[in-house]
Amino acid sequence: MLERKRYEDLKVGDRATLTRTITETDIVLFAGLTGDYYPVHVDEEYARRSRFGGRIAHGMLVGSLVSTLNGWILGTGGGISLRQTLEFRKPVRPGDTITAVAEITELIPEKRQLRVKHTLTNQRGEVVVTGEALEMKDEEEAP
Amino acid sequence: MLERKRYEDLKVGDRATLTRTITETDIVLFAGLTGDYYPVHVDEEYARRSRFGGRIAHGMLVGSLVSTLNGWILGTGGGISLRQTLEFRKPVRPGDTITAVAEITELIPEKRQLRVKHTLTNQRGEVVVTGEALEMKDEEEAP
Amino acid sequence: MLERKRYEDLKVGDRATLTRTITETDIVLFAGLTGDYYPVHVDEEYARRSRFGGRIAHGMLVGSLVSTLNGWILGTGGGISLRQTLEFRKPVRPGDTITAVAEITELIPEKRQLRVKHTLTNQRGEVVVTGEALEMKDEEEAP
Amino acid sequence: MLERKRYEDLKVGDRATLTRTITETDIVLFAGLTGDYYPVHVDEEYARRSRFGGRIAHGMLVGSLVSTLNGWILGTGGGISLRQTLEFRKPVRPGDTITAVAEITELIPEKRQLRVKHTLTNQRGEVVVTGEALEMKDEEEAP
Repeated sequence: MLERKRYEDLKVGDRATLTRTITETDIVLFAGLTGDYYPVHVDEEYARRSRFGGRIAHGMLVGSLVSTLNGWILGTGGGISLRQTLEFRKPVRPGDTITAVAEITELIPEKRQLRVKHTLTNQRGEVVVTGEALEMKDEEEAP
Repeated sequence: MLERKRYEDLKVGDRATLTRTITETDIVLFAGLTGDYYPVHVDEEYARRSRFGGRIAHGMLVGSLVSTLNGWILGTGGGISLRQTLEFRKPVRPGDTITAVAEITELIPEKRQLRVKHTLTNQRGEVVVTGEALEMKDEEEAP
Repeated sequence: MLERKRYEDLKVGDRATLTRTITETDIVLFAGLTGDYYPVHVDEEYARRSRFGGRIAHGMLVGSLVSTLNGWILGTGGGISLRQTLEFRKPVRPGDTITAVAEITELIPEKRQLRVKHTLTNQRGEVVVTGEALEMKDEEEAP
Repeated sequence: MLERKRYEDLKVGDRATLTRTITETDIVLFAGLTGDYYPVHVDEEYARRSRFGGRIAHGMLVGSLVSTLNGWILGTGGGISLRQTLEFRKPVRPGDTITAVAEITELIPEKRQLRVKHTLTNQRGEVVVTGEALEMKDEEEAP
């Protein structure tokens, strides 16, 4: 599904989107992968007494969905992320279904770079994470 | 590492650090967790012909180590990330050992917020990722 | 369950069976392992509006239980699958408990081969998957 | 990346392809997921003395890549696998890079069904697994 693209194929307004239910399993796996066992993510007793009322997903877990989208936007044939910003706006709970959208907002042809905006919403349409990436398309050096 | 802290316990210059070898397993698990199968991460034949000369870790995988550090800096008793910036400066390959350091650079007491700077270096002392977080310590509402 | 066997030990009617509850975790792990994020498996909102009324397990996840049974039937000392057919008859949902049965239906001694029939039923006795394998027992070359 | 499709959008010759390096991690995870600990997959000492000379991937692990491709071929908006056949032709070892191709070979409009052929090759161009699926596109009932 990853098509090969050249920088010239990219246009402002190009979009990619994915939808995934964030499960308890994702939270457990992300804790194990990063070592982030902050109690609001892995300690239900603590989390229940916190202002969240129960465990929530790591912001960086939810935010990492943009990694997938960035690859779809860039396509194969060279492509790299230079910078990623994420804003964590609302908690995501196990069972929430997140729709993540990436959209090219700016092309910087002299550097073969592009800016991508990310908006992640839950099943109620609430924005939970926003982000922005600076990417580079370096296909000359790629297979 | 996770001690309970109040906002008043935090000081500019407070640091947390962790060191981890990033393995092929981490890359496979992160691909599975996010759905990011961009070929430079999971296709050795493609990656070998790319300018990287072999598979590299997802930037967001390496960057996600800051999630752990942010929790250590904040301590338990309330704490939340509002924003995270990451700059991807050099590729990380399976077998690279990454040392990630977080340091409080600014306190904003009127909002109970703090700024944390992240520096991730490899076993050769090369900086691979840098970042900055804006965090909030909201312990009044926490267990 | 894994005993060493020779081809001469195998008989038509030999059976192996296992029972497992298929969990949301199994589905999340299988999606990550294969990259199969088809929405009826990982997007609860989509799945709820589909004719399934909620997420279902990947057919190949349920079908992969036969891989375990084939090894039990063959035993160690050489053994290999040549062909596997699977028919997906009913959806399997998180929480369903699947009993998988394998049975030798035919021996083909001149080729040291055997045919194995698979029947997978849920906790209500409904057949969810059926299958057939062609296996070979090549113990002369095995440790 | 999963586009919505109607049965009328499908054509004989439509293809989907993916490439993945099969790692030791994938084998360990598949063993855990299925319970298939047959020694040629998980016991390096046994596998080294076998005719394979080392651990090999489960046939059903490699074969499960077709699950991803079938979803890409069908698109969202309803779609289901009725039957899958797999032939295991050559062993796949950790580090082998597998390219899996799916292609629609027949449309059966009166049943809204289609036949899909699968060919999986390694980095040397050797065919390791072939398969065939019978699928159904049932979008009228889908979201």
